[in-house]
Amino acid sequence: MNIEIIGFIAAFTTTAAYFPQVYKIWKSKKTDGVSLLMYVVMFCGISLWLYYSLEINRPSLIVANSITLLIVSIIIFFKIKFK
Amino acid sequence: MNIEIIGFIAAFTTTAAYFPQVYKIWKSKKTDGVSLLMYVVMFCGISLWLYYSLEINRPSLIVANSITLLIVSIIIFFKIKFK
Repeated sequence: MNIEIIGFIAAFTTTAAYFPQVYKIWKSKKTDGVSLLMYVVMFCGISLWLYYSLEINRPSLIVANSITLLIVSIIIFFKIKFK
Repeated sequence: MNIEIIGFIAAFTTTAAYFPQVYKIWKSKKTDGVSLLMYVVMFCGISLWLYYSLEINRPSLIVANSITLLIVSIIIFFKIKFK
């Protein structure tokens, strides 16, 4: 089995993991339990992983890190908006 | 610059990102704002990434995914304990 297929399943799973958190914030309009610092640091880290993924040229990692960066940006936006 | 160095900086950053969340839960003893489903799905996803990392044999990815899996396990434990 092509390892990139495992990578894409992993990418789907780790990005999907953020959706319940996004939905929970959206529904409750509350972000008290979510750490802004966590997501800001995460944003920096995922940016570095995206650079790394592009360098080693692994499609599943590039897709996963691009989508995760977008989701983390949305959570940061919610955290600021619903504060 | 060796790309694995970028990977290790990324690994340090994304794993460090979880610490404010762990600290926030530990301090408040509250996990209301944290989605259990998020962390359970994340646990499955990171397990797949760990398998992927071992297959493509990239040290920074192996270290990052191993530590993240441990931290996600701690958050799940807190979520169940402090419910």
